[in-house]
Amino acid sequence: MSLLEQTNYPADLKKLDQAALTKLAKELREFMLDTVSKKGGHLAPSLGAVELTLALHYCYNTPEDKLVWDVGHQAYAHKILTGRRNQFGTLRQYGGISGFPRIAESEYDTVSTGHASTSISVGLGIAMARDLQEKSFNVVSIIGDGSMSAGLAFEGLNNLGSSATNMTVVLNDNEMSISKNVGALSRYLTRIITDKRYNKLKSDVWELLGSLSNVGKKIRSLVHSVDDAIKHVITPGKLFEDMGLRYIGPIDGHNIKELIDVFNFAKQSTSGPILVHVLTKKGKGYSFAEVDATKFHGIGTFSRDTGKTPQKSPTCPSYSKVFGKSLAEIAEEDKQVVAITAAMPDGTGLDIFRDAHPDRFFDVGITEGHAVTFAAGLAIQGLKPVVAIYSTFLQRAYDNIIHDVALDEHSVIFCLDRAGLVGSDGPTHHGTFDLTYARVIPGATIMTPSSKLELRQMLYTAIKEIKGPVFIRYPRGSGHGNGLDHPFEAVPLYKPKVLQEGKQVAILVSGDLCYEATKCCELLQESKIKPTLVDVRFVKPLDKEFYQALFQKHKNIVTIESNSLCGGFGAAILELVSKLGIPNKVLTLGYPDKFIPHGDTNYLLKEIGLSAEGMAERIKTFIAR
Amino acid sequence: MSLLEQTNYPADLKKLDQAALTKLAKELREFMLDTVSKKGGHLAPSLGAVELTLALHYCYNTPEDKLVWDVGHQAYAHKILTGRRNQFGTLRQYGGISGFPRIAESEYDTVSTGHASTSISVGLGIAMARDLQEKSFNVVSIIGDGSMSAGLAFEGLNNLGSSATNMTVVLNDNEMSISKNVGALSRYLTRIITDKRYNKLKSDVWELLGSLSNVGKKIRSLVHSVDDAIKHVITPGKLFEDMGLRYIGPIDGHNIKELIDVFNFAKQSTSGPILVHVLTKKGKGYSFAEVDATKFHGIGTFSRDTGKTPQKSPTCPSYSKVFGKSLAEIAEEDKQVVAITAAMPDGTGLDIFRDAHPDRFFDVGITEGHAVTFAAGLAIQGLKPVVAIYSTFLQRAYDNIIHDVALDEHSVIFCLDRAGLVGSDGPTHHGTFDLTYARVIPGATIMTPSSKLELRQMLYTAIKEIKGPVFIRYPRGSGHGNGLDHPFEAVPLYKPKVLQEGKQVAILVSGDLCYEATKCCELLQESKIKPTLVDVRFVKPLDKEFYQALFQKHKNIVTIESNSLCGGFGAAILELVSKLGIPNKVLTLGYPDKFIPHGDTNYLLKEIGLSAEGMAERIKTFIAR
Repeated sequence: MSLLEQTNYPADLKKLDQAALTKLAKELREFMLDTVSKKGGHLAPSLGAVELTLALHYCYNTPEDKLVWDVGHQAYAHKILTGRRNQFGTLRQYGGISGFPRIAESEYDTVSTGHASTSISVGLGIAMARDLQEKSFNVVSIIGDGSMSAGLAFEGLNNLGSSATNMTVVLNDNEMSISKNVGALSRYLTRIITDKRYNKLKSDVWELLGSLSNVGKKIRSLVHSVDDAIKHVITPGKLFEDMGLRYIGPIDGHNIKELIDVFNFAKQSTSGPILVHVLTKKGKGYSFAEVDATKFHGIGTFSRDTGKTPQKSPTCPSYSKVFGKSLAEIAEEDKQVVAITAAMPDGTGLDIFRDAHPDRFFDVGITEGHAVTFAAGLAIQGLKPVVAIYSTFLQRAYDNIIHDVALDEHSVIFCLDRAGLVGSDGPTHHGTFDLTYARVIPGATIMTPSSKLELRQMLYTAIKEIKGPVFIRYPRGSGHGNGLDHPFEAVPLYKPKVLQEGKQVAILVSGDLCYEATKCCELLQESKIKPTLVDVRFVKPLDKEFYQALFQKHKNIVTIESNSLCGGFGAAILELVSKLGIPNKVLTLGYPDKFIPHGDTNYLLKEIGLSAEGMAERIKTFIAR
Repeated sequence: MSLLEQTNYPADLKKLDQAALTKLAKELREFMLDTVSKKGGHLAPSLGAVELTLALHYCYNTPEDKLVWDVGHQAYAHKILTGRRNQFGTLRQYGGISGFPRIAESEYDTVSTGHASTSISVGLGIAMARDLQEKSFNVVSIIGDGSMSAGLAFEGLNNLGSSATNMTVVLNDNEMSISKNVGALSRYLTRIITDKRYNKLKSDVWELLGSLSNVGKKIRSLVHSVDDAIKHVITPGKLFEDMGLRYIGPIDGHNIKELIDVFNFAKQSTSGPILVHVLTKKGKGYSFAEVDATKFHGIGTFSRDTGKTPQKSPTCPSYSKVFGKSLAEIAEEDKQVVAITAAMPDGTGLDIFRDAHPDRFFDVGITEGHAVTFAAGLAIQGLKPVVAIYSTFLQRAYDNIIHDVALDEHSVIFCLDRAGLVGSDGPTHHGTFDLTYARVIPGATIMTPSSKLELRQMLYTAIKEIKGPVFIRYPRGSGHGNGLDHPFEAVPLYKPKVLQEGKQVAILVSGDLCYEATKCCELLQESKIKPTLVDVRFVKPLDKEFYQALFQKHKNIVTIESNSLCGGFGAAILELVSKLGIPNKVLTLGYPDKFIPHGDTNYLLKEIGLSAEGMAERIKTFIAR
């Protein structure tokens, strides 16, 4: 029986000596590799945090002491060591355990998470509540260097540093979050690690001060001041000390003994907030992941032996790729086009743009708010900024969109990848609210491509023909067909596209569910119903004349969208019907008003009644009503 | 003719000598005081920035060089000196000039603004565009120390510091933004100013190094290193230097000569980003404002001679006061209640809570995102956090609400003051989107008090009876009546309140427009229409049974809300009507889908057809249709 099989909970860890912990680290990596290669998941971050996780659970008294994982994609070892080893094979599957910490899943998961940079703020809330309640547990937030670049982390740190509360922030510094880190803070961290001068200077200065120590009284007192000053400058982490945190580091994050020593010290300290700076390597222990941590950050199935993923069909590229490639092509001819990502060049497809036009590419780090306000500045000077951010992450820049872009109708194009259900990453990553939150923004244009080719043409249209803020939202994955096989051609502004003329019922579909809607029409035809099918293309503004004619011709109207039904596309049609005063019957199909769990997207669609079959049934009932 | 009357544009400034500039500063203050005492406005910040504004326009070549004012409430001198002196009397009035910079108003207003902490990001966008376009103007962002505490400012600084672009950030440090500053950064700034040790140490060290300069070669090189190290530690602003900006300061922000020298230097520097740290006094030159800058931050009319504002009626307190007082009362008995503000204790009414329960009050600075995620942490530990943030500013915490609070149904109560139109502050401050952006959040409860008494009782209800995130949104101002004159009593959960039974038409009103709606019913009665009038109280969830019965009884349904019609309360009713399949006719009354300008709220309501008279006319036409 392996060590891992004997280790079900943190209590089991505490019996082990250091050699056993080292052995356990190796077994944990094997176990994770075995599962993730078969199921997919966030591999590289979790491989890098194995020793860190062991040391934390070894030193702290979890779950009474609170571990707060930032983002949570590095928490696989934590899950395995807290009673979930046997369920680990169900990772990210419908009904199985989540890829992220979830309060509902385990008492060891202090908070549910999935977005970056929240751990210091939420940890501070827990610590402050503890102080008010006169309890005495420890709070440890573990945050990556990439997450630290976000404003929210700074806000938390700024508030924590000015408080006297006892809390430990572990800065898990792997010098590379999802993409290469950017920003002054990141450069500062690198300087701490690499600047050998610090250590050299430190010993030289001690020596000099020693030789001066028997001079006169005035000089001695001066030397004391200088000593003090120098101690500060040659201590790495002065920036954090300036922020009010005691800095300890840098520590080798793969050396269990060193980690245990530091955490045991931090645990007993009662002199206010501490920052422990730990250096780790993403993908540690699996050579392919060490070499290409970006590829192994979040990955599907792959071969353990070769590190290779199944070949993707070049004739069916992802929406992201079609976006990146099309934008790079447009920028070839249009020199005003610039592109901005918030630390996601690969995920968004902008890596293609970056390689083609490095001078017009801006990776601003995990800073969605800044990305948008920065884009407003670029637009003010007449450039054409395209901001690519996942639907769910753009929620972080909501005010920036309204206040900095929309108020003056600056022409910024927002490309919202991962709109709709994303599958196994679950509710923190589904993009289910954007049609609602974007639709209320005055002057916004919202486009919902129903295919990759439409995405390509809509991107072109937005750049060439539309003023003010534009949202283009499209799903995760590859959909169908190629999408790159046509020359650029603008879509007619605000015009829906009638895919099929019918009667009795008009089905208005926005975006990627067009494919399912087409299949749904085929099913309806078997029941002798021939609907009119419209690819609406624009959710805002709506072409009043087109819809008026359509509503007059069809008593029954059905809307389909991959967004919450609260205030989304269906609501827009209801608002228009009400305004026009036509007595239509309207059925709105879309996401229910709840957080949708993780699982296979097709399975989830079926669950919520949005498979072709499910929609056909609901439409038949509706017409008969 | 005064100097001010001869100074219409920055070009006129450049002819003046220093004595004349000093005289002009005095005249500017007089002029501002004269106008603001009669019209109201943001006085203290603008009084503090007079010399700064003069020096900037004197040194830089505006509008070709770009000044980016953060928030913009300190930009009155800027407005007066850039062609708007004669319009200054129309400040904040409908059709008059805005209280904030507006691109549409002047080519000297680089960006339109009103929210804090955006200036570095948008300035960097402008600077980066300039570099790409191979132009050569200067970009200067002027940001207060309060705004600097926001994550967005850090994101901008972090990105700026790592760039090599030429841009100047002026940190206008008055040691007090709207409320007393908080956070580690603020403490750090204070340390720069107050720590006399720096200067003493500096000269002592130079002396020592001089006396050591004729020792051996090895020592000399060592001394050089130490020199270098010490230069860093004894330079204030090391934190900014660590972030990659050249730090200059602190500078006396009321000394025109010193300011001119520094800006002339910064203007010519081409070695990357510079931070100029300027110390100013809010309210400078007007004793009452110097003493109480909070009162004079944003103020209505007042007496120039006495600094006194017209006495407010104690029998008609503001919504904010009723909120603050009621919360303090509830917390007297319920020890789990804690309150959080993002730098707005006075504006939100939480100053009353702070004075009553200082240990349970948290002012986290201008950090709306952190405020919400921090509250999630407090809720996780079982406390009952109440977060008071203006409707428009809560847009900054949108993802925090969804990801950190709603996903796990943590019980955090959001009190959205300034919902609906706010009057003279205009579109950056109107709260016109919250019903839409909150309604799409799964599990949220949304309450819209129609009076101050309802606010008091709904607050009590939220604390005592509702789980998960709760939004209570209420308007700026005092409305009618007292609101504090009743003991606490929970409102029946999710139940609308029928104010009047009628027929033909049911009017469903959410929130403060209830007063206008009641008057509207009186007008309709003159035309022999007696509507049923319902104070809906809850916008989410809607009581299905109640509405089903109501819809069956009334063919005509009218909704009224102080929110955009896109996805707001009216849309919720349309969604429900469609779901229930009842063939009602629905008229939705609310804000149009555009940014609404500044001006008197009653006038604005009339303009958009939401006065009692306007609504009555529209309802009559609707019924007749």
